[in-house]
Amino acid sequence: MSLFALPRDQKPPELDDKEKLAWLRLIRTDNVGPITFYNLMETYQTATAALEALPKLSKRGGRLKDITLFSEQDALKEIDTVEKHGAEMVFAAEAAYPLSLAATEDAPPVLTVLGNKKLLNLPTIGMVGARNASLNGRKFAEKIARDLGAENFMVASGLARGIDAAAHTGALPTGTIAAVAGGIDNIYPPENAELYEQIKFEGCIVAESPFGMEPLARHFPKRNRIISGLSSGVVVVEATLKSGSLITARLAAEQGRDVYAVPGHPFDPRAAGPNKLLQDGAGLVLSADDIIRNTQSFAIHNLTLNEAPQPSWNPQILDDFEAEDIREIILQNISHTAVTVDELVRNCQLTIPAVQMVLLELELAGRIQRLAGNRIVLIN
Amino acid sequence: MSLFALPRDQKPPELDDKEKLAWLRLIRTDNVGPITFYNLMETYQTATAALEALPKLSKRGGRLKDITLFSEQDALKEIDTVEKHGAEMVFAAEAAYPLSLAATEDAPPVLTVLGNKKLLNLPTIGMVGARNASLNGRKFAEKIARDLGAENFMVASGLARGIDAAAHTGALPTGTIAAVAGGIDNIYPPENAELYEQIKFEGCIVAESPFGMEPLARHFPKRNRIISGLSSGVVVVEATLKSGSLITARLAAEQGRDVYAVPGHPFDPRAAGPNKLLQDGAGLVLSADDIIRNTQSFAIHNLTLNEAPQPSWNPQILDDFEAEDIREIILQNISHTAVTVDELVRNCQLTIPAVQMVLLELELAGRIQRLAGNRIVLIN
Repeated sequence: MSLFALPRDQKPPELDDKEKLAWLRLIRTDNVGPITFYNLMETYQTATAALEALPKLSKRGGRLKDITLFSEQDALKEIDTVEKHGAEMVFAAEAAYPLSLAATEDAPPVLTVLGNKKLLNLPTIGMVGARNASLNGRKFAEKIARDLGAENFMVASGLARGIDAAAHTGALPTGTIAAVAGGIDNIYPPENAELYEQIKFEGCIVAESPFGMEPLARHFPKRNRIISGLSSGVVVVEATLKSGSLITARLAAEQGRDVYAVPGHPFDPRAAGPNKLLQDGAGLVLSADDIIRNTQSFAIHNLTLNEAPQPSWNPQILDDFEAEDIREIILQNISHTAVTVDELVRNCQLTIPAVQMVLLELELAGRIQRLAGNRIVLIN
Repeated sequence: MSLFALPRDQKPPELDDKEKLAWLRLIRTDNVGPITFYNLMETYQTATAALEALPKLSKRGGRLKDITLFSEQDALKEIDTVEKHGAEMVFAAEAAYPLSLAATEDAPPVLTVLGNKKLLNLPTIGMVGARNASLNGRKFAEKIARDLGAENFMVASGLARGIDAAAHTGALPTGTIAAVAGGIDNIYPPENAELYEQIKFEGCIVAESPFGMEPLARHFPKRNRIISGLSSGVVVVEATLKSGSLITARLAAEQGRDVYAVPGHPFDPRAAGPNKLLQDGAGLVLSADDIIRNTQSFAIHNLTLNEAPQPSWNPQILDDFEAEDIREIILQNISHTAVTVDELVRNCQLTIPAVQMVLLELELAGRIQRLAGNRIVLIN
């Protein structure tokens, strides 16, 4: 990820059309998530070179069938469709990419963006909460969003029912960002179609999923990390204890963002989530000022990516025999219970660069999965 | 106050009937509040000796008419009436006096007690809140009180409408303490007469005001400091921003007690008080366990009065000429705006013992008033 860790006063690496195409093909290829993407970029410097290395890496990781790269034709078609829709693709190495999001470990390498992309680099507060929010919850969210807007904050949310829709509505006159779970063209829920059109013209919509993708359950937590990643802080308005909003709050905290919560009566199940967050140290929000006062002192607006945590990724390109030996040792030491890469390195008495390279291969082969907190788990 | 600062394993000073009578006469005399009472006791060792000194002290402080001491006859009559009511008087130097309350700076030197006085030395949580509480607020208060009782905590409150009544009701089966603003015999509000009778038989009622006294507005803040003084922590359930409950919370914090608050929606004016307290660092209460968990680590149960803050009271008995000179200087340096005694000592370049003695005289003469935080203000 340090490839993208450039202060904005330095010129970001130029991506020509060929390399952009390679970026898109790499991130759209099965088993390549954002962290693997950045690891590959560290190793091979360009997406073009990483794409070439993929078949061998995945085969050595133990993949039986050849890996199917996302085709150039499909990538060209996606870019074309996106443009016809009036949207565009923004790459993590470009100046237009939101700096605050780029500072997160697993930022989407490519975002599809519809609307005014300049809003993505303005000070932003995320607002999330229950889809079946109470009338008071929605009124409060709309008011807070309006007041934040009046103080020049963008408001980011997820275009869902309830709190999300109220937050977007309140911030619409001053600027709002919707992160959607499916493709940029997929309006979900359909009842928010009018809001989608308004945000498209007056705000900005972003999507990590490919154009045309229907949102699946697993896309929502990924979408949530984009909302918090765009924001210096996230406000949870109403949420039950088991809700996605609490996951967003946790992701926000892990990203080093402020977490705020709106209190409610202990008998109100929709207050259980925010109240729990307050007990755990979230900032208590009675008015937008409670957020603004705290955010003024937060340096996210001046954050350079150099200040983002740097994963210690320094892979070693191994020959087949070395890789085989190390893979055996690693496979004996991992299981369906997650372990951290650090524990693995200690237990196996191997060098970090060698372990990293073999893990990358196993990941591409679909045999392990990366979890948050630099942990891995065996799959299948 | 150090007179009463004895660990409970040391024998408290014996008070014979004559000295008890003198205590009662001293505290019932005009212009003698608890702090003045303890200052006088420090200087004269016994209430009998302090009573004898009062006329001269108050005259020297500038009182034109002779001070009227509370008569022996009236004191005997009050003791007799209290006993006929089935109550008794408990003095701050006695083992039965609540230790937690005695640790406060301005503990009532005499409490009238009705019911089971043993409850006064058990671990106690105070609960306060709005008189016009919501149904949910009352239900929550009753539940928390019941759950605290089940975990062997006494619940102290003020026998008012709303939250107070709900807290007493919830804790009735396990033990509850009502601190009333008027005399021990004065049931206010009258609608709580049945609750009063129940607490009398199953709990304990305490009063600082003399028997027969109707509660006046100024008695309520005094009553509130008794609720918090009896408690290791105080829970505010529903309260507007300008309510007496917030004053109780402030007093509790000043007494070194924990402050807890029950959250509510920002649109609910009765949640404004607790929400403000939460922003200021109060503990957030969703269940009795949120209080108990915190209180287990609190040492109030083992508190000895020696650990209570000791006011630095070391008065100097002055001759008339010295007193006259010092009084002039002090009167030039005080006004209707409060100053701290420390500031006064610095500005006047006088010794602390001399200033303390002259302030005591001025107070007895009704020319100054003591405020919280060791401050004084000119009156009339």
